[in-house]
Amino acid sequence: MEPRKIMSKPKARNAVYAQSGGVTAVINASACGVIEAALKARAHIARLYAGRDGIVGILTEDLIDVGAESRATIRALRYTPAGAFGSARFKLKGLEENRAEYQRLIDVFRAHDIGYFFYNGGNDSMDTAHKVAQIAAQLDYPIACIGIPKTVDNDLPHTDCCPGFGSVAKYIAVSTLEGAMDVASMARTSTKVFVLEVMGRHAGWIAAAGGLAGRKAGDPPHIILFPEIPFEREAFLARVKQCVTDHGYCVIVVSEGAHYADGKFLAEAGTTDAFGHTQLGGVGPVVANMVREAHGYKFHWAVADYLQRAARHIGSRVDVEQAYAVGKAAVAYALEGRDDVMPAIKRLSSRPYRWKIVPVPLAAVANVEKTVPRHFITADGYGITAACRRYLEPLIGGEDYPPYKAGLPAYARLRGKAVRRRLKTPYQLK
Amino acid sequence: MEPRKIMSKPKARNAVYAQSGGVTAVINASACGVIEAALKARAHIARLYAGRDGIVGILTEDLIDVGAESRATIRALRYTPAGAFGSARFKLKGLEENRAEYQRLIDVFRAHDIGYFFYNGGNDSMDTAHKVAQIAAQLDYPIACIGIPKTVDNDLPHTDCCPGFGSVAKYIAVSTLEGAMDVASMARTSTKVFVLEVMGRHAGWIAAAGGLAGRKAGDPPHIILFPEIPFEREAFLARVKQCVTDHGYCVIVVSEGAHYADGKFLAEAGTTDAFGHTQLGGVGPVVANMVREAHGYKFHWAVADYLQRAARHIGSRVDVEQAYAVGKAAVAYALEGRDDVMPAIKRLSSRPYRWKIVPVPLAAVANVEKTVPRHFITADGYGITAACRRYLEPLIGGEDYPPYKAGLPAYARLRGKAVRRRLKTPYQLK
Repeated sequence: MEPRKIMSKPKARNAVYAQSGGVTAVINASACGVIEAALKARAHIARLYAGRDGIVGILTEDLIDVGAESRATIRALRYTPAGAFGSARFKLKGLEENRAEYQRLIDVFRAHDIGYFFYNGGNDSMDTAHKVAQIAAQLDYPIACIGIPKTVDNDLPHTDCCPGFGSVAKYIAVSTLEGAMDVASMARTSTKVFVLEVMGRHAGWIAAAGGLAGRKAGDPPHIILFPEIPFEREAFLARVKQCVTDHGYCVIVVSEGAHYADGKFLAEAGTTDAFGHTQLGGVGPVVANMVREAHGYKFHWAVADYLQRAARHIGSRVDVEQAYAVGKAAVAYALEGRDDVMPAIKRLSSRPYRWKIVPVPLAAVANVEKTVPRHFITADGYGITAACRRYLEPLIGGEDYPPYKAGLPAYARLRGKAVRRRLKTPYQLK
Repeated sequence: MEPRKIMSKPKARNAVYAQSGGVTAVINASACGVIEAALKARAHIARLYAGRDGIVGILTEDLIDVGAESRATIRALRYTPAGAFGSARFKLKGLEENRAEYQRLIDVFRAHDIGYFFYNGGNDSMDTAHKVAQIAAQLDYPIACIGIPKTVDNDLPHTDCCPGFGSVAKYIAVSTLEGAMDVASMARTSTKVFVLEVMGRHAGWIAAAGGLAGRKAGDPPHIILFPEIPFEREAFLARVKQCVTDHGYCVIVVSEGAHYADGKFLAEAGTTDAFGHTQLGGVGPVVANMVREAHGYKFHWAVADYLQRAARHIGSRVDVEQAYAVGKAAVAYALEGRDDVMPAIKRLSSRPYRWKIVPVPLAAVANVEKTVPRHFITADGYGITAACRRYLEPLIGGEDYPPYKAGLPAYARLRGKAVRRRLKTPYQLK
């Protein structure tokens, strides 16, 4: 009788997923991709947890048992905006400055036998995931650290775009189109200048997306104010006047990060209220008022703020598919034994839009910001070029409507069952 | 040989349609209803014209030949927001003050053999249509004057609701839900208070619609500020603090018409900028800043402005159907020989929502404003009651998505062919 052969089978370990930074319309679609892929890989991933409120939940050992959610709820994450598990604006300090934070993460990982860490965020988060990979290696703690890209700002390098951006771009393009049609209908006797303020403090991608609303010369928006182009008051005011003369009205999309040549934000224009307080934020009203003072035109302004990044009701189908794909790929990469990488989107062609997912080292992504290149902005600095349109248009392609109940989207609500704590020591957030 | 019998057949006359006041996501659906019904009634309505930019186009004899538009364009009006023919903020003065304006309207009508006048607007416009009916009768000019209801403010009496409101209500309910989910995801480490400013200077219907986002106790929005309820600063601030304590965050929907007991609007709170100019409008930032000063919470605010009333991408199916139905009924009423009336919506049941169109005399509608009744607002003044929800919920029922092309709604663009002028005298707008 021959001895029975024992196949070496790796022990399944647990995984933790966390959302980070400003949420988007599709970050939960990435979560859905992670969870559905993990559920299919039970041989390797025994249990999947999520940090409640992101990395804060991991530090404080406040973990959500994802396995306690129904399959229907998990499917519904694909069309649910915002951060279903909670997200955090919490930047871990440098390794040298606060090694204890990283040590604590490893302690929590060890206590729960976490072998896979999926961190879904932007530049800062890719940096954090990279640092966790480094310290785990130093401490000989075996773990796969995978970053999953997410930003509405579209400012991560080495990826065609960032999941979350396509949907905010679609929302802003549609809103610019609709708002402009409203103004155009009434300009003869009413509002002449309409200003829409959009997000993007350092990168003007979202502002650029407003430009998609105009398809031929003279179409609104007539002026886009990018953070990449220093604002010149006189040239801008002259352009507004020309627009109103030529078209009867003027539609302006302004990035919250629009600033003067000296770096001063328009939104911090030094105005104060009667009590001496700094002017309430909002570059939209600042620009609108500047136009009124110079030309006396009747104006309106809108500030979309959170509505733009939460607007899953008008999500881009391409964006949803990419968000899901990077989540799914993150699990595949981890199972392939990759570490310290991010699944990125590589464009294969623009028309039709074809793309695939490729791995990029976290170190290459961490803390690098991709702004709108000069050749994507027209020579006068106020519009987008054909090259920019060719880049942007596929990203807002297709619709992906959530189901509705009684007139409202039927978004998922998680149970959020807590995982039993294993560590004796509580953790005080710095 | 018997003499041939001549049947008395009324001579077909022409019709004019005009849009008035602030446009909506569905005013063109009413235009579509008028046009499609008129096209089926060629025996009575020979040609259909539209005032370019509303009543201004009629006064200046600047008429659009609706018959020159393709059937496809006309069908597309059903899903096209804003005023496709142009609208105007132009209120005709009283008959006694400016009889010449009314006389001019009749002159234009006579020159183009207009037998039907369809005026699509709100309170003021119903008053104008009523006055035109009166002066036409005085001058023995035969014409059917039919008002077609339209307001996002939902403030017309004698109708269950106003076409245009259902869609803005759906947009605000969806946006409140989505914005609140965003804030809830991040409140632990980021924004605690989110303020959404909505339209409705005198009536709080749109603000009330924000309340639909919350389905159970504690759900956001936590506070609604209605123009119907005088604002009390201390009570409000205490409520905000309680909300943040209880829920970790606070979502506030504020009507642009929110005001103090003395009638002073919050948005005109007397603040000025460094140059002594009155504070840039926007009750949203005023409320947000008030909270920050009192409690120091991190806040965000959004001002939807025109985006809310142009948001056809998230139009209510019920609203679209009603808008089309009042347009169609207007033609039917005219052909039945009715004059000086408005097709109104009568609710037959709430669950399921059933309604029919009934005629209401213009005199009963003109210049009367319907505000939110006290029993629709909770005792504390900050929320909506079950009765209000029962009223509102059907109005946002169903979706009615426009077709898309390259990621954007494929909205109609009219040719807008001008009708040849027949009058020698130009007209100078006052």
